[in-house]
Amino acid sequence: MTLKDTIAHIPEPDAGAAEAARSRQDMLTKPRGSLGRLEELSIRLAAISGQPLPTIKHKVIVTMAGDHGVARDGVSAYPPEVTPQMVLNFLSGRAAVNVLARHVGARIVVVDMGVNYDFDPHPDLLIRKVARGTNSIACGPAMTREQAVQAIEAGIEVVEAEIAEGLDIVGTGDMGIGNTTPSAAIAAALTGEAVSKIVGRGTGLDDAGLARKVEVIERALAINKPDPNDGLDVLAKVGGFEIGGLAGVILGAASHRRPVMIDGFISTAAAMIAIAMAPQARPYLIAAHRSQEQGHGIMQDWAGLKPLLDIDMRLGEGTGAALGISLAEAACKILAEMATFDEAGVSSKEE
Amino acid sequence: MTLKDTIAHIPEPDAGAAEAARSRQDMLTKPRGSLGRLEELSIRLAAISGQPLPTIKHKVIVTMAGDHGVARDGVSAYPPEVTPQMVLNFLSGRAAVNVLARHVGARIVVVDMGVNYDFDPHPDLLIRKVARGTNSIACGPAMTREQAVQAIEAGIEVVEAEIAEGLDIVGTGDMGIGNTTPSAAIAAALTGEAVSKIVGRGTGLDDAGLARKVEVIERALAINKPDPNDGLDVLAKVGGFEIGGLAGVILGAASHRRPVMIDGFISTAAAMIAIAMAPQARPYLIAAHRSQEQGHGIMQDWAGLKPLLDIDMRLGEGTGAALGISLAEAACKILAEMATFDEAGVSSKEE
Repeated sequence: MTLKDTIAHIPEPDAGAAEAARSRQDMLTKPRGSLGRLEELSIRLAAISGQPLPTIKHKVIVTMAGDHGVARDGVSAYPPEVTPQMVLNFLSGRAAVNVLARHVGARIVVVDMGVNYDFDPHPDLLIRKVARGTNSIACGPAMTREQAVQAIEAGIEVVEAEIAEGLDIVGTGDMGIGNTTPSAAIAAALTGEAVSKIVGRGTGLDDAGLARKVEVIERALAINKPDPNDGLDVLAKVGGFEIGGLAGVILGAASHRRPVMIDGFISTAAAMIAIAMAPQARPYLIAAHRSQEQGHGIMQDWAGLKPLLDIDMRLGEGTGAALGISLAEAACKILAEMATFDEAGVSSKEE
Repeated sequence: MTLKDTIAHIPEPDAGAAEAARSRQDMLTKPRGSLGRLEELSIRLAAISGQPLPTIKHKVIVTMAGDHGVARDGVSAYPPEVTPQMVLNFLSGRAAVNVLARHVGARIVVVDMGVNYDFDPHPDLLIRKVARGTNSIACGPAMTREQAVQAIEAGIEVVEAEIAEGLDIVGTGDMGIGNTTPSAAIAAALTGEAVSKIVGRGTGLDDAGLARKVEVIERALAINKPDPNDGLDVLAKVGGFEIGGLAGVILGAASHRRPVMIDGFISTAAAMIAIAMAPQARPYLIAAHRSQEQGHGIMQDWAGLKPLLDIDMRLGEGTGAALGISLAEAACKILAEMATFDEAGVSSKEE
């Protein structure tokens, strides 16, 4: 679907299914509410899917890669050639996201949204290259508005193809040297917070690098003047191709009632773009974790996302999403597989 | 082994294996430290097991059940017959801990440590009944010192049998109507904190019930005067049979270099008894989660345990331990399965 049609098709969450799930949780053999956020999660998954007993079997993590013109401005501790090197590492199955996806039974789809490298064909790699990296946001817009639409629509198409194959939940993942810089710029543009409050050390900047990064983002915002009331404008001016692609994955999943497990800092920036364009997508998003990257909390608060895990991760790739997907699956199994008090012949609370 | 021999056999964690794991983490294709507590956990599991590349395959949750004389004093929202009813629910595979254990690939061993009920034989149920419930701690000691030793040694025997079958990690779980009361009494006795700061609503007490529970525990401590320098005395005076059994599981696992995933409030009380008797057991313990039960944080601080998850769970049974075990397994897989920068041909940080 086109971006416009996709946004128009995002439904309301199903209040009836949520209510049915909530009633069932209260009949299961445990004190009410004693499974805490797992219970809450199962009710949300019912609302998202429209199923009183949602199931999560087909799990996919979409890891999108792109290069960033701004990476040449000293905002990352790693050189830009690491972007394609890590894509190849994903394809060989030995990066962190591969290990964690296998652990939770999820498949990974790797998408080249705009890497400055020509990959050989590979069954697990989709080439949706918008360009060989964005322009530096420190000098002008990252991409044209048309390219921003192209990136988002590529994401919609990728997730729709997976939904056609039976996808029950999608996790977001990213790879792109320098991409905490556009993500922080998006966060600053949409929240209005000071750049210095949002920017962190990314993959490991020192103090001088951090100061340079703040200055680059402040310059990018001053030069580009992204319009906080226009998510597409923010993406085009200070975003990235993989960020746009992930925003498309999010919108596409929401339009088909599929839950999206949002990974860390970069994925949350993509979620913010999606929400800025379509606030009705918000109920379909679940935050996997609170990244150790500074500013992530500010972004999650803006997006209304409460993280499941807080274990100092800050890698991206979809690593946090993998762990979050396992919790979502656990929540569905609790709802479907536990006995009720009646079924088990267990006395309920004395009231 | 006897309790005395078990304590004498608890080894030092292996600093060499920990160092090897730490070095390998720093060579893997991710920024150093970017997997946060998963990295930390893998290093601890190396230290515990003595293996630079620890593996977690055979996962067992030991869920121990016992009744409590004090449950007749109105300290629980559920009637005492729920203890055996829930044991039968565990055996039918449809309680919360069964669902979550299956989800993470763990087996459950259910142990009757002192339930006031005669169970029919069942392949998944071990009968190690010390007595048909403890005496009410509000009137005198829960059990004799001999019974306390018997409970602990039963736990040692249970975990040693599993270790002989290849157990790589054990999770603790509990069932016993009324058992947040002895657990809170243990916590107050060992930490010296005010009872009102530790006691929570358990499975769902109202305000009057909560006040009664505080009063019962204060009376139990005043009557019994448990000696905080003698863990066995604390267990005998204000503990429970399943709590003693779990302390035995913990000590037995530590003496054989096996990690123990500690569940919630009751399991943490058992961990405190184990630590009070053998502080050298502490490095073998991992806290799965922070329970929503008030006071759990105070107990974890005393025990030096930092929880992995904080998702408002307060059910017990081993439900939190199941989720924690999955994170421990993920941590080991990261260490073993990820490529190094050299192997993957990925450029490392520019320094």
